[in-house]
Amino acid sequence: MTQNARDSRPVLYHYWRSSSSWRVRWALSHKGIDYTPVAVDLLKGAQRSPEHLQRNPLGAVPVLNIDGLELGESMAILEYLEETHPERPLLPAAPRARARVRQLCQIIVADTQPLQNLSVLEHVAELVSDPEQRRPWAERYIARGFDGYEALLRRDDAPAGPCSFGDEVTLADLCLVPQCLNARRQGLDVGRWPRIAAIEAHCLRTAAAQASAPEAFKPG
Amino acid sequence: MTQNARDSRPVLYHYWRSSSSWRVRWALSHKGIDYTPVAVDLLKGAQRSPEHLQRNPLGAVPVLNIDGLELGESMAILEYLEETHPERPLLPAAPRARARVRQLCQIIVADTQPLQNLSVLEHVAELVSDPEQRRPWAERYIARGFDGYEALLRRDDAPAGPCSFGDEVTLADLCLVPQCLNARRQGLDVGRWPRIAAIEAHCLRTAAAQASAPEAFKPG
Repeated sequence: MTQNARDSRPVLYHYWRSSSSWRVRWALSHKGIDYTPVAVDLLKGAQRSPEHLQRNPLGAVPVLNIDGLELGESMAILEYLEETHPERPLLPAAPRARARVRQLCQIIVADTQPLQNLSVLEHVAELVSDPEQRRPWAERYIARGFDGYEALLRRDDAPAGPCSFGDEVTLADLCLVPQCLNARRQGLDVGRWPRIAAIEAHCLRTAAAQASAPEAFKPG
Repeated sequence: MTQNARDSRPVLYHYWRSSSSWRVRWALSHKGIDYTPVAVDLLKGAQRSPEHLQRNPLGAVPVLNIDGLELGESMAILEYLEETHPERPLLPAAPRARARVRQLCQIIVADTQPLQNLSVLEHVAELVSDPEQRRPWAERYIARGFDGYEALLRRDDAPAGPCSFGDEVTLADLCLVPQCLNARRQGLDVGRWPRIAAIEAHCLRTAAAQASAPEAFKPG
């Protein structure tokens, strides 16, 4: 057992503007799970401090300390919360529907976000000195991910509704909407993807999205 | 329903040397699920053909056509197979154990493989003309992932055993072992990570790993 023993309040190590942190804050809010947020300032390198590397050897946020488990990787955290707090589900019930939602999640979590996060963009800047030449990097990978996501939403077998998968908010939305904010920070017009933009607008009207949004955790 | 209607034999669109394809072939072999493999030649750009983009708009392998569902993203496929074919499980039963296995998976699937796959390395080569300057790219991200993975294996709360999580092969091993092959192709010595190397050696002795390995699907 670590410091946060079973049955005590979960602690979330996060950064206000990290999209993967928002995914987890949103799930906690959606399910009504009380937690203590602890900021890890990525701009100051706090994710590489010895204390944080002890929590997550990858030196990344989010990390959720829950039920005696110190857990990194947002998708692993989301699946854990879904299994242990099945009320207000964020995955549909049928395996084929769950599969499609997870496919949408992974388009963002594996194929988009990792290629345009802060540490990778910093490394690209080290290798490519000309800002004009390196500027399209983030756009390239965000557009590839959003193109694929939007195309899946338009498949004949996609359910109708205001969310990524039908009428209810799912894990797919928790991955997509924070990525829209990243896209805008990189200068992209999310309106290029009309379904994605509509989903974002819909989800941002929910109480859980608003309570967990970066602005609600902005320091100072 | 697509062409592969419910109850017919699943079709796997894959590439012999793609590590994410091997993950899925391995799961199918492990669970004894008969399937028809269809090669998508990444070196010839077949993943960007209209037929393949219809299957997966991201233009990536693997895609599994199963139960009338055309499904991309290897983690979504693995979770679907686990839910629909629970025999010979690849996730432990307890939520905390499942969470740790999924964390290990995502270290490879989200934080390692996408940063060193063929399309990204080709793009880095376009931006960085000097081969010496771009050579460390793949090593950087593979080493970051393996360092984190190995550190998790050494945590006090990690179960003992020859696999990534205790005695039984899990989804974590299906993600790790194919990445070891990628690492070697990029010139890394996997022996730098002794636990990872030992897990790889153990897993490669299993029938399912051997039946699904790239060499077993090498063309010609």
